[in-house]
Amino acid sequence: MAHATALPRNEAGIKAAIGVLKQLFGDRLQTGAAIREQHGHTTTWIENQMPDAVVFPADTTEVSQIVKACAEYGVPIIPFGTGTSLEGHVNAPAGGISVDTSQMNKILAVHAEDLDVVVQPGVTREQLNTFLRDQGLFFPIDPGANASLGGMAATRASGTNAVRYGTMKDNVMALEVVMADGTVIRTAQRAKKSSAGYDMTRLMVGSEGTLGLITELTLKLQGIPEAISSARCSFRSIDDACRAVMMTIQYGIPVARIELLDEMSVKAANAYSKLELPETPLLLLEFHGSDAGVAEQAETFSSIAEEFNGFDIATTASTEERNKLWQARHDMYWASLQIRPGAKGISTDVCVPISRLAECVVAAQEKAADMGLLSPIVGHVGDGNFHCLLLIDIDNAEERARAGDFVSWLNQTAIAMDGTCTGEHGIGQGKRGYLKAELGETTRYMAAIKVALDPDNILNPGKILID
Amino acid sequence: MAHATALPRNEAGIKAAIGVLKQLFGDRLQTGAAIREQHGHTTTWIENQMPDAVVFPADTTEVSQIVKACAEYGVPIIPFGTGTSLEGHVNAPAGGISVDTSQMNKILAVHAEDLDVVVQPGVTREQLNTFLRDQGLFFPIDPGANASLGGMAATRASGTNAVRYGTMKDNVMALEVVMADGTVIRTAQRAKKSSAGYDMTRLMVGSEGTLGLITELTLKLQGIPEAISSARCSFRSIDDACRAVMMTIQYGIPVARIELLDEMSVKAANAYSKLELPETPLLLLEFHGSDAGVAEQAETFSSIAEEFNGFDIATTASTEERNKLWQARHDMYWASLQIRPGAKGISTDVCVPISRLAECVVAAQEKAADMGLLSPIVGHVGDGNFHCLLLIDIDNAEERARAGDFVSWLNQTAIAMDGTCTGEHGIGQGKRGYLKAELGETTRYMAAIKVALDPDNILNPGKILID
Repeated sequence: MAHATALPRNEAGIKAAIGVLKQLFGDRLQTGAAIREQHGHTTTWIENQMPDAVVFPADTTEVSQIVKACAEYGVPIIPFGTGTSLEGHVNAPAGGISVDTSQMNKILAVHAEDLDVVVQPGVTREQLNTFLRDQGLFFPIDPGANASLGGMAATRASGTNAVRYGTMKDNVMALEVVMADGTVIRTAQRAKKSSAGYDMTRLMVGSEGTLGLITELTLKLQGIPEAISSARCSFRSIDDACRAVMMTIQYGIPVARIELLDEMSVKAANAYSKLELPETPLLLLEFHGSDAGVAEQAETFSSIAEEFNGFDIATTASTEERNKLWQARHDMYWASLQIRPGAKGISTDVCVPISRLAECVVAAQEKAADMGLLSPIVGHVGDGNFHCLLLIDIDNAEERARAGDFVSWLNQTAIAMDGTCTGEHGIGQGKRGYLKAELGETTRYMAAIKVALDPDNILNPGKILID
Repeated sequence: MAHATALPRNEAGIKAAIGVLKQLFGDRLQTGAAIREQHGHTTTWIENQMPDAVVFPADTTEVSQIVKACAEYGVPIIPFGTGTSLEGHVNAPAGGISVDTSQMNKILAVHAEDLDVVVQPGVTREQLNTFLRDQGLFFPIDPGANASLGGMAATRASGTNAVRYGTMKDNVMALEVVMADGTVIRTAQRAKKSSAGYDMTRLMVGSEGTLGLITELTLKLQGIPEAISSARCSFRSIDDACRAVMMTIQYGIPVARIELLDEMSVKAANAYSKLELPETPLLLLEFHGSDAGVAEQAETFSSIAEEFNGFDIATTASTEERNKLWQARHDMYWASLQIRPGAKGISTDVCVPISRLAECVVAAQEKAADMGLLSPIVGHVGDGNFHCLLLIDIDNAEERARAGDFVSWLNQTAIAMDGTCTGEHGIGQGKRGYLKAELGETTRYMAAIKVALDPDNILNPGKILID
């Protein structure tokens, strides 16, 4: 585990707040070690910092009650969705109360005519899409994991089809939020656009629970496309693959997904998903539109790919073949772990201007090799975002340190290319230093906003900003 | 003119700051009455509140110098682009210094491979698009007026093609901003997406100069589409036209523009632009894509329109015919004024969920008629946004009051429909009360952010929030 700094604990306050909350929530407040541990670090490589209690509210009023109790005693509140965040977002470095939103899982209203839906924060994206399917609608953001929509908003998540549908910032229309004093606000009405004052919706999206607790989301929906098809194409080099991506985007082909797997990832996918792909860099694409539209997109992409020496190009409108291909992509995490059984996977998340992408990916491959680290790479390359999955013996301190050095080098490299240390995972505990490196003095004004909205620093302390 | 409250003036500070700035800027600081008056209310119907001086900086360093001087003496700073804002954004209710960005009009870098451009805030959208044309690129946001890009970002502007390309919030990737203490910050790097801390970009977009002065913008660009075509279709009722819009959006037709003109607007367009359109509600559309793609879009739209009794449907790929049609749309302001020569046009800006659009438009028509007001309506109906252009004898106090009552009624009506009082014009001075009505307690937290980032309230005071 990577070490995480503990913050001072307010023991008396924590005890008092738990007492009050126990009265209010009974068995829906849990203090057992197992459940507290589950609500600590989850999937991150940062060490576990357990909360002192976990509470399961059912609605906005209850969240407000929790916040008011914690505000009264100055006790930290850590919102918890499904625990799929990667940067220690749900750790409790100063202890406090984990607010688990899993019971706030109701779909409150579908406005099919307006293409929007109102949900509680514990609704997961798969739950939502299963519910919507009969109405011919879907919510496009797909970060891989079956995350909660509240958590996805809180970390400004995105994933494989952001290249077409944007990130959570583009798909959250309005939020209901419980502020640090327990007041419930709405950030916006349900109009598709608005110039009504400061954009509180976008301020909350990506604030990782440090400015307020999301209790309701209004999300933009899409009609399920008439036709979906997919394509794959192998390349002789990362550079060729990235140039094909750039040209595809410049041509304005509205690709729904365009994913890169590097050589090591393709090998892993072949082994794990029983495929026979050429073991060179690979692009996987998905097209959404009308029948004629997707055919045209696939054809245009194929000509572009050929220009960049793409080979073994295969396009398909068959749902079965497409699902097989994308299942392999979604299983990359597990496939990669098989490269080194027993290893822990640590994911980086840099995003650079697409013109620098090939250079950044190749530099990462070379650096990992130089440092003796195994690191398959997959990327949401239409956006310039890619993940190295470092395969680490987590009990080996020297190897952990080497992984840390690599992460640091990669983040600095991306920042120097006018990129970001995090395309979609967020800052959490793990990237606070890099945020400072990336945005400098800007973080001082972020801190001013934090103080203005949460003067006692009770909302997810120790995240995003360095205290 | 509508009355605007004056705020207390810091006479000594203003005098001192002008003295300092005169030393620094020489003739680029102007205090003549004519130029100060030009930098007051501009196109709004709110009375003129002139600044005490107008300064013309050439770069970021100079803007920072201005802000530092004004901060030292506690003097208001009012950013000025092209003066096309509609809600008194450039008025100086407490006096102070108007910062005219017209000399900051350089296009600093075009990154064609990344589809982005870096500009100074005084660059206008027409200037940018003329510059980009040779490279096959364009910036899609089109609010009608040839506004400055800094001003468009500051008011979160949009316009006719937001239905496809979004608003300024979706097209500004990063900003350089001078904060209230003169510090220069960057809100983000140039990566296409990021989860790096609070979304300072989106916080600044729409903040109307009250949180910082925009000195540089990184904007997303689009490739000029291979094909552009247009369509028009007349309907027997607003309801039929709006239902056709809803269905078009639900079908996922990626219309680039979909505009409504009501009966009165069509009559005005016929007279002004010498057209012979049926004098019933009209939809104008534009399609962007490949040749086959735009043909398919037009065809699908036509079938939808027929379902809703659309008639006199005409589609065209001819640039000349298309330009004629859209010129008529862009000239609607002038055409409408001809309905009542000598009248002043006052524009409303509500935006409602699209399912409530027909109801809202029809209610507005009926209310205007009941109140004896002439008010043609045009709408960016794909987004649920429409403008009543009230034609007023501005010297008639009773008529002004009636117009005010209508505006108030319409804003309240839209808010009650889960809509907003402003889809794209912003709050400025004119809509501060409606912002409160729309978002209630949320404005308290907006005020907390304002205090955190501008503790002395020198940045465009008297805008957005009620002091």
